[in-house]
Amino acid sequence: MASEIRSLAWHDTGLRLLDQTALPQRVVYLDITEVDALIDAIRRLAVRGAPALGAAGAYGVAVAMRQGGREGWDAARLAAEIGRIRDARPTAVNLAGGVDRVLPFAAEGVEAVLAEADAVVREDVEANHAIGRHGADWILSRVGRRPLRVLTHCNTGSLATAGWGTALGIVRELHARGVLEVVYVDETRPLLQGSRLTAWELAQEGIAHLVQPDGAAASTILRGLVDVAVIGADRIAANGDTANKIGSVGVALACADAGIPFVVAAPLTTFDDATAHGDEITIEERPESEVLEVAGVRVAPVESRAFNPAFDVTPARLISVIVNEAGVREY
Amino acid sequence: MASEIRSLAWHDTGLRLLDQTALPQRVVYLDITEVDALIDAIRRLAVRGAPALGAAGAYGVAVAMRQGGREGWDAARLAAEIGRIRDARPTAVNLAGGVDRVLPFAAEGVEAVLAEADAVVREDVEANHAIGRHGADWILSRVGRRPLRVLTHCNTGSLATAGWGTALGIVRELHARGVLEVVYVDETRPLLQGSRLTAWELAQEGIAHLVQPDGAAASTILRGLVDVAVIGADRIAANGDTANKIGSVGVALACADAGIPFVVAAPLTTFDDATAHGDEITIEERPESEVLEVAGVRVAPVESRAFNPAFDVTPARLISVIVNEAGVREY
Repeated sequence: MASEIRSLAWHDTGLRLLDQTALPQRVVYLDITEVDALIDAIRRLAVRGAPALGAAGAYGVAVAMRQGGREGWDAARLAAEIGRIRDARPTAVNLAGGVDRVLPFAAEGVEAVLAEADAVVREDVEANHAIGRHGADWILSRVGRRPLRVLTHCNTGSLATAGWGTALGIVRELHARGVLEVVYVDETRPLLQGSRLTAWELAQEGIAHLVQPDGAAASTILRGLVDVAVIGADRIAANGDTANKIGSVGVALACADAGIPFVVAAPLTTFDDATAHGDEITIEERPESEVLEVAGVRVAPVESRAFNPAFDVTPARLISVIVNEAGVREY
Repeated sequence: MASEIRSLAWHDTGLRLLDQTALPQRVVYLDITEVDALIDAIRRLAVRGAPALGAAGAYGVAVAMRQGGREGWDAARLAAEIGRIRDARPTAVNLAGGVDRVLPFAAEGVEAVLAEADAVVREDVEANHAIGRHGADWILSRVGRRPLRVLTHCNTGSLATAGWGTALGIVRELHARGVLEVVYVDETRPLLQGSRLTAWELAQEGIAHLVQPDGAAASTILRGLVDVAVIGADRIAANGDTANKIGSVGVALACADAGIPFVVAAPLTTFDDATAHGDEITIEERPESEVLEVAGVRVAPVESRAFNPAFDVTPARLISVIVNEAGVREY
């Protein structure tokens, strides 16, 4: 059952990650006991999704402390290695947030760090369930059609979080309330988190869904086939501008044109009030090969270059509401 | 050289097609001498692009007449087979238009049909060169930045036409005038006509380009990295609503939001005044496997279904101008 999907958990002496690059074909777990392996897993997206990265950052401090203990690192080396985890990817605020949350407990030892990391996970799952309820309440109060047709982008489910999901948590809640007809799932190139991960989570739950090319999202919305779009967030600036997976702002533009709600769902850990506006958010650019190759096969000519920003910024003016565990913020 | 790229030509007793499904890895030609083979080539997009389909329809009549002669078809059978070619794909008006253009010559024999089909090709190439000039003139009169950064979607070059290209013809003309900096090429899922075909044509010409995921188009535009978007068309309704490759309307929405021109380029053969509005245009839905599989490998779970419309409709209100061989229509 989907409630059993865990993107990550501490096991004995290491961090066990569900390798999201192998899904849905294979369910493979990685046991992480070294900083380099964790950073590699983060960079190649074996673990991904802003809230899941928060938990990975928190447990990552414990991974570094254990490795440092085995290898006799001094304090400066340990601090540097933790800093490398913190900076492994730039856009999601949660990764650094997870590290920073547990660091004060490092002086008390690994067990204290692990206890705090467990709290990060527990709170994230609770936050997600609250987001699901608040989001479903808001949507049902604003959208009259039953059953609902929902569009989502990328993966924001159990895999992207410590459990349950943010935007996909709202989808699950709507399904649980018996008011969901179908989910349009953007495949989410280049790494296909929609067709590989979101579709897999929905299939596990028996939720009806249609995978579509990212380019189809705007017309599916303009044709009146969608009642509401719900997405997650990697960083939310103080003014509400939201960084999320590349393709999100195109969905937002279509929703605005069609007059349907565009809903962002994220825990409070994703809000970054230190960033005033979206244009201050660092947008990660990923390897060109992710675009120029498909399933490991080169599709573009050898002379071609690629532009591969992993995220875009949706301005607050295009966002109907941002749902968090405390409630709903209208923009 | 790119000027030598020919998507199709008559050779001796058959229609020679450059198999666009094999590009850019392999340059393979198909010699088509039977109606079934032509329909198969059209349906699996070995030949594609609205103007190229027009030429394929025109030569297709000759293919049917030759096969009918060999196999002793009566007039009803011949008419039925030609009708099958005419209806092989529904959205591009040019396919049926090419068939209809040469049909009156059938009574005079195959040579007369071939002569008219050759005229279709010749006129299309001439139209494309005129479109290139008119489009470049209009863009340079409206956009101040030099050199220009252009975004395009799908493939509208020599491969999509009888030669030179429509939207890509404008790109070529801008390059020839020395005012082009870079082309952002949407990869154009699911069949990757951007990364496979447009990138290949641009590489042949030495034109700088960056392939990007379709989901990146909106943010590339909103970030101010693009000065103008140019796309082709498969059918243009009387009111200017334009059917084009799935993803086009998302580009148009972003251009409107960013305040940059969205230019459609198409020969007059793509204008369909018998269709009043875009919502009367039949949108082809293609096999789910094109979305659920990538490079022949299943990526989505076996339980998943897909939504795979091949085209979308951009409303006239989002189109700055439509360029044809006679000049520019503002909407």
